[in-house]
Amino acid sequence: MLLNVGTFIRSATRFSPFIIPHSSPSSPSSFCFSFSPKQTVSFTLQSSQMASFTTLSQSPPKLLFRQLFEKESSTYTYLLADCSHPDKPALLIDPVDRTVDRDLNLVKELGLKLIYAMNTHVHADHVTGTGLIKGKVPGVKSVISKASGSKADVFVEPGDKISFGDLFLEVRATPGHTMGCVTYVTGDGPDQPQPRMAFTGDALLIRGCGRTDFQIFTLPKETLLYPAHDYKGFSVTTVGEEMLYNPRLTKDEETFKNIMENLNLAYPKMIDVAVPANMVCGLQDLEPKAN
Amino acid sequence: MLLNVGTFIRSATRFSPFIIPHSSPSSPSSFCFSFSPKQTVSFTLQSSQMASFTTLSQSPPKLLFRQLFEKESSTYTYLLADCSHPDKPALLIDPVDRTVDRDLNLVKELGLKLIYAMNTHVHADHVTGTGLIKGKVPGVKSVISKASGSKADVFVEPGDKISFGDLFLEVRATPGHTMGCVTYVTGDGPDQPQPRMAFTGDALLIRGCGRTDFQIFTLPKETLLYPAHDYKGFSVTTVGEEMLYNPRLTKDEETFKNIMENLNLAYPKMIDVAVPANMVCGLQDLEPKAN
Repeated sequence: MLLNVGTFIRSATRFSPFIIPHSSPSSPSSFCFSFSPKQTVSFTLQSSQMASFTTLSQSPPKLLFRQLFEKESSTYTYLLADCSHPDKPALLIDPVDRTVDRDLNLVKELGLKLIYAMNTHVHADHVTGTGLIKGKVPGVKSVISKASGSKADVFVEPGDKISFGDLFLEVRATPGHTMGCVTYVTGDGPDQPQPRMAFTGDALLIRGCGRTDFQIFTLPKETLLYPAHDYKGFSVTTVGEEMLYNPRLTKDEETFKNIMENLNLAYPKMIDVAVPANMVCGLQDLEPKAN
Repeated sequence: MLLNVGTFIRSATRFSPFIIPHSSPSSPSSFCFSFSPKQTVSFTLQSSQMASFTTLSQSPPKLLFRQLFEKESSTYTYLLADCSHPDKPALLIDPVDRTVDRDLNLVKELGLKLIYAMNTHVHADHVTGTGLIKGKVPGVKSVISKASGSKADVFVEPGDKISFGDLFLEVRATPGHTMGCVTYVTGDGPDQPQPRMAFTGDALLIRGCGRTDFQIFTLPKETLLYPAHDYKGFSVTTVGEEMLYNPRLTKDEETFKNIMENLNLAYPKMIDVAVPANMVCGLQDLEPKAN
């Protein structure tokens, strides 16, 4: 458990947008659906004291969003795309090697052009699908944080912006589970999804884990949080819920350290295979030695 | 496989709304988040022929929606609530006995008042949680179709409307998997979720099963379809996608019958336990004999 995080926190105001190739669509598929969640939030502070507000975008974003599950490792993979863009550029967050074909088939069926295969961190419980995806879909770039020390085509740092069409993700440092953990957060702006959506990797699990409140908990309370795993069947939570009900993050730092030090977690069964493989996009045996 | 369905199809125009008790909230929880998906849909019929439209509601619905997963039977349970209503009335669709405590805890944390525990049909692969829920939360009513022949507090028929706050579900007959299968579809109207959402039970699985296109496929193409199970990690699909890519429903009726007759499915391992239990709200041993 690594808690020395200060050096990884940078301003979210510095953006270094990636250039997206505007080539012809790679998929012949003939249609595309997209949606973004629209949210109304109401807090009942006391029964007699109700504050409510509605988030409505006049110029709606065109986010296609799919949450996909890999049952053996209980991993969530997320597919996002900008369906308003002619290319329908798409990205996958935390793909798993054994579900790559499922994910790529869905990308094809939806007529999307996959441009990024991203990881929130170097996973210890499954092998990333990014390497396989790169082999199957030429032009896709793998993405991971620079702080991860892993191989990838694109290294991101906190504050970076990852564009896909007219939508983008911001990179936030959320170390703790690993030093290089980042959370990808949908953009803040009138043409971006409302409420914002944060892909937390293992930095925050629903009602569990993490010590990342300094970054994730600064997001609006209605922000939807999508973890990399869930072992109880939950699919989404919000910043507000976790601030109230996460049994670890509602404690002070000392109590949190005690909880984490006394979890007595078993040695992760896939760690010796997964981590070395994930340091090289999941292609340990195939990747050339040269950097 | 039962395909004789004609007698169950009724007009969706006859509504018999249920009365919702406006008692004080049952949960002391202090806040409530809600959201409804907002969708932009674009069809690219050919590369040069693009038709697109946007669905936007000026008066947004206040649907809280959660998709919950039970891993052993790969069952999805759905939680829906109207957060704009003072009582925050909620319902659960297809709850599973072994995840009842998880679901009820979430209902409590979100400050909701559970009023209905509903089934899409008599399940053969898991025991419903409706009976347990009724025991744990006084006042909750179990709901199932009249055609199921099962016990419940409320029997619905095609065309019925199930209200929770200012939101409602319509009941559509989608027999085939069982004679009593129904699909619950969110209401059609300016204050209802856009796009509409259909909870199909086992009548339509993502890229599989069913013979329910005569009812489900009459919904708008952008309608989000939420099945009772998925074995591949998908969480949602749309009418448009299934019309194009469902390998069974894109065939003519004769081919479909041949596919279904030659599936050689194993005898469902839980059927002998689950079906008798589910005929009595999952409480086979506890329920009194009298009807």
